[in-house]
Amino acid sequence: MNSIDPNRLHNFSAGPGTLPLAVLESVCEELPVFAQTGSSVMEISHRSPEYIQIEASARERITSLLGLSQDWHILFLGGGASMQFHQVPLNFLPHDGQAGYLLTGSWAKKAHAEADQIGKGRMIASSADSGFNYIPDPSLWDLSSDDVYVHYTSNNTIYGTQFQSTPDVDSPLVCDASSDFLSRPIELDRYGLIYAGAQKNIGPAGVTVILIRDDFLDTRKNSLPTMLDYGTHAAKCFNTPPVFAVYIVEKVLDWLQDQGGISGIQKINHQKASLLYSTIDQSEFYKGTAEKTSRSEMNVTFRLHQEDLEPVFIHEAAKHGLLALKGHRSVGGMRASIYNACTLDSVKVLVDFMKDFEKRNG
Amino acid sequence: MNSIDPNRLHNFSAGPGTLPLAVLESVCEELPVFAQTGSSVMEISHRSPEYIQIEASARERITSLLGLSQDWHILFLGGGASMQFHQVPLNFLPHDGQAGYLLTGSWAKKAHAEADQIGKGRMIASSADSGFNYIPDPSLWDLSSDDVYVHYTSNNTIYGTQFQSTPDVDSPLVCDASSDFLSRPIELDRYGLIYAGAQKNIGPAGVTVILIRDDFLDTRKNSLPTMLDYGTHAAKCFNTPPVFAVYIVEKVLDWLQDQGGISGIQKINHQKASLLYSTIDQSEFYKGTAEKTSRSEMNVTFRLHQEDLEPVFIHEAAKHGLLALKGHRSVGGMRASIYNACTLDSVKVLVDFMKDFEKRNG
Repeated sequence: MNSIDPNRLHNFSAGPGTLPLAVLESVCEELPVFAQTGSSVMEISHRSPEYIQIEASARERITSLLGLSQDWHILFLGGGASMQFHQVPLNFLPHDGQAGYLLTGSWAKKAHAEADQIGKGRMIASSADSGFNYIPDPSLWDLSSDDVYVHYTSNNTIYGTQFQSTPDVDSPLVCDASSDFLSRPIELDRYGLIYAGAQKNIGPAGVTVILIRDDFLDTRKNSLPTMLDYGTHAAKCFNTPPVFAVYIVEKVLDWLQDQGGISGIQKINHQKASLLYSTIDQSEFYKGTAEKTSRSEMNVTFRLHQEDLEPVFIHEAAKHGLLALKGHRSVGGMRASIYNACTLDSVKVLVDFMKDFEKRNG
Repeated sequence: MNSIDPNRLHNFSAGPGTLPLAVLESVCEELPVFAQTGSSVMEISHRSPEYIQIEASARERITSLLGLSQDWHILFLGGGASMQFHQVPLNFLPHDGQAGYLLTGSWAKKAHAEADQIGKGRMIASSADSGFNYIPDPSLWDLSSDDVYVHYTSNNTIYGTQFQSTPDVDSPLVCDASSDFLSRPIELDRYGLIYAGAQKNIGPAGVTVILIRDDFLDTRKNSLPTMLDYGTHAAKCFNTPPVFAVYIVEKVLDWLQDQGGISGIQKINHQKASLLYSTIDQSEFYKGTAEKTSRSEMNVTFRLHQEDLEPVFIHEAAKHGLLALKGHRSVGGMRASIYNACTLDSVKVLVDFMKDFEKRNG
C-alpha cells in the first residue's frame, strides 16, 4: 500500500507511532555493523567516540531546529514521560509550595496527581466537565503569582485537542509536549522545562527528551536522589543512556531537517489536518469530537453519527491498509494520529477511504 | 575477523556489550516490516497483540530459564540499573529503618549512597581497602537481623570480581545482577528482588529487567510516586515500555535457550574464563588484578608487568580486530568482558594474540 515498500501499510498509531521509512532503511543498512566500529550501534560503549558523536549530533539538530540558545540543556532520559510527572515536582515544587496545573486530559490529570504528593498541585482550569473536548478559555484561568511553575499538556492525544497558542502566564511554563514536540515552533522564552516521550514525533519508545533552561534548573531543590536530579544529567553523561533510541532520534531529526525543519513540517502537518477536518466537516456522516477551536493537528478524533458502524469502519479500514484507527478505549470512536512521520499520502488514502465508506453506508 | 560476517570484529566491551549475531540478523530481517503488522516493531502500539505477545514470550523464557515460580513478577522498566539504586530503598527502606550493603565496587557504593538518603544504609563489609580486588570473607560480615534487606552487586564489572556463591544471610537479598544476569543459576529462594540493566548479558541499553517476589513486594511502603512504585508495574503495563529493547531481549532469551539455557551457557562461560585466566596465570608477562578466589567469569581484568606496554597492547589488539580491551578509566590496565554473547572463538583469538604479543615483547 505504501509507494516505496509494498508491505508497509498506512500507520495511524497514537504511539508508538510511525517513523520515516528512510530512517528504518538507514538502520537496516547499519546492521549488523555500524560505521567502522566492527559492531552494531547497540554493542558499542556509551563512552565511545561514535556514540558521543551521535548524542552530540542529536543535540545540535534540536538546537538548530528550535533555535535554542546556550541557556538550554538537552537531556535524553529513560523511564518515559510518566516519570517526568514525578520528577518535575520532585525537583521544583517545595513541600509547602504550589504549582499550577491545566487539566486538559488524562495525562495532565496524572501529572497533577503526582505533584499533589509532593506539594500543592493547584488546578488552574479543567475541561473535565465535557469530557476534555476543549482547551479552557484563558480568560477563565485561575492564575497565581505564587505558582513556582505552570504545567500543561500541549497536545491531548486521547481527546484530539491541542493548545492553539502558548499559555500566557507569569510563572515559568513546564510542558508535556510528548505528542506534538517538533511539529510546530515553540516560544522558548516562556518555558523552564519541556519534556517529550520520543515515541510519537521523534523516535521509538524508550527515551524522553528534556529541554531545561539553566536559570530554571538553578531553582531546583537540594538533596535529590541522584538519578532524579536534573542537574545530574545536565552536568554529564551519568549512566548508560538508551543508546539505540537516541540513535534513532538522531536520524529522525536529520530527516526532519530535510523536510524543511519546523516550518516545513508544520506546513505539511497543517495540510494533513486540514484535509481530514474538512472531510469530516463537509460530511453529515462523520463528526469531529473536539471543539473546532481546540482541534489537534496531531490526533484527529472523530465518530460516525451511526455509532454501530464504527467497528465496521475500523475493520474495513484495516483491510485497506489503514492501521490503528480505533479511538482510545476511554473515549471510543476513531482517531487518526498524523504525527510528523505520517505522510500526506497516507492521509489522502484515508480520506478517499472515508468518502467511499460514506458513499456505501451513508 | 568474525567467521560469519567479515566486518564484525571481536567485541570485549564492558557494556553495552556484544549481542549474538543471530539476533541482529533476525532484527534486520524484520525491518522495515515486522511480522504481518505493516510496520516495524518500533511503530506498533504497546497495547497491540503483537507487542503483548513479545513481552509475554520474554517473561515465559525468563521463567523457564530460571525456573521461576508464580510468586515472581518480571518487570521491564526504563531508567537503567542506576534508577534502582534509589527505587529499592524508596520502596523498602523505612526512614527509621536499616538495610545492609556489601561494598564491593563503585556500583555498590553508589547504591549504598542512595539508600542513605532514605534511611540507614548500613555497611556490612567492604573491599575498598585494597581497591575492591576481592569479595570480603563472609565470616567477617557485620550482619544484623534488623536489616530489611541485604543489597549486593553479584559481579563487579570494573574490578573483575564476582561473588562465587550466594550470600547466606537471613534478610531477603536484593541483587544488582546487571553484569552476570542469566550467566549462571540463581538460588531464587534467598532473594526478594533482582535487577539487571540489559546491556551486558541480555540485550541493548534502555531496559532494566526486575524480578520481584510477591511476598517481598508486599512489604513496600505506602504513598509511593506512581512510576517508582514496583506495585504499579507488577499490576499492569502502566505506561509505554521500551518496546524495541524488550523485543531484542526476547530474541536474546530465545538464543540463550538454544545454547542449552543457563547450564549450557554457564559451561561455555566457564570455558572462556578458564582459557583467559590460565593464559594469564601461566605467564610471567601478564598478571590478573582480582584475587583468584574472587575472579569474575564475566570481566577478566589484567595488567602487564611492564605497564608502559599496556597502551601498545590495546592498540595492537584493536588492529587485530580485538575491540574494547581497555580497562575502566578508574583502574587502568586491560579488561576483557566475556558476557554470554561473547563467543569462545573470540576468546581464543584473544588468547592467541596475547601469546604472540608476549613472544614479541616479553
